Amino acid sequence: MTRDPSPALSVALAYYHAWTGKDIDRAMTHVADDVVCEAPAGRVDGVEGLRQFMAPFARMLTGSELIAAFGDDDTALLMYNPHTTLVQDAPSAEHFTVKDGRIVHSLLVFDRTPFDAARRAAT
Amino acid sequence: MTRDPSPALSVALAYYHAWTGKDIDRAMTHVADDVVCEAPAGRVDGVEGLRQFMAPFARMLTGSELIAAFGDDDTALLMYNPHTTLVQDAPSAEHFTVKDGRIVHSLLVFDRTPFDAARRAAT
Repeated sequence: MTRDPSPALSVALAYYHAWTGKDIDRAMTHVADDVVCEAPAGRVDGVEGLRQFMAPFARMLTGSELIAAFGDDDTALLMYNPHTTLVQDAPSAEHFTVKDGRIVHSLLVFDRTPFDAARRAAT
Repeated sequence: MTRDPSPALSVALAYYHAWTGKDIDRAMTHVADDVVCEAPAGRVDGVEGLRQFMAPFARMLTGSELIAAFGDDDTALLMYNPHTTLVQDAPSAEHFTVKDGRIVHSLLVFDRTPFDAARRAAT
């Protein structure tokens, strides 16, 4: 773990702690208006798009453990294990690019399979 | 990116470059006999288990880009985008724990959904 967070890691961690604390408004203060998030199901554009993408996920969150967090001046890489009402463990990784103190790009990786299975089982 | 790779990152990168170069034997020289790999479909035990898990994936690999690589004394975190004959882009992240110069634990994250869809389409 980086002991003295880099500039980009500080922003990524502030975003992570905000949304995992279910404060989506605060999370979005760390995101650029024209952010692009590449998520497993496709590309999410803009801060409003990201808010609509993240809000339902944050609502079903019951906790999250930060597994690893590294960064340099412009990028950061996190791995975390969110727990949700739908899926108990959903290990995820996210690579952030930060510019002028805000997240301009994120590449998000997680396995959709258990979420799809849980949704099918619930219907 | 870490410019001067940490001890754990050096091992993780040697493993990554070996298997993405389709040299599974060389990759396994960087892995402890009793390695545990937590993969999306479940836990893989031991170096022979990991070899059997990775070999079919390496065989269908057509290339891979390293997106980010960070590490400290004992752990490393990689994100990469493997291209395979089955799925063009399969962004993946892997968190490594290294002991005595070998990988003892890996937590591997990728989305199984496009692989399952491609396999279904092929049958």
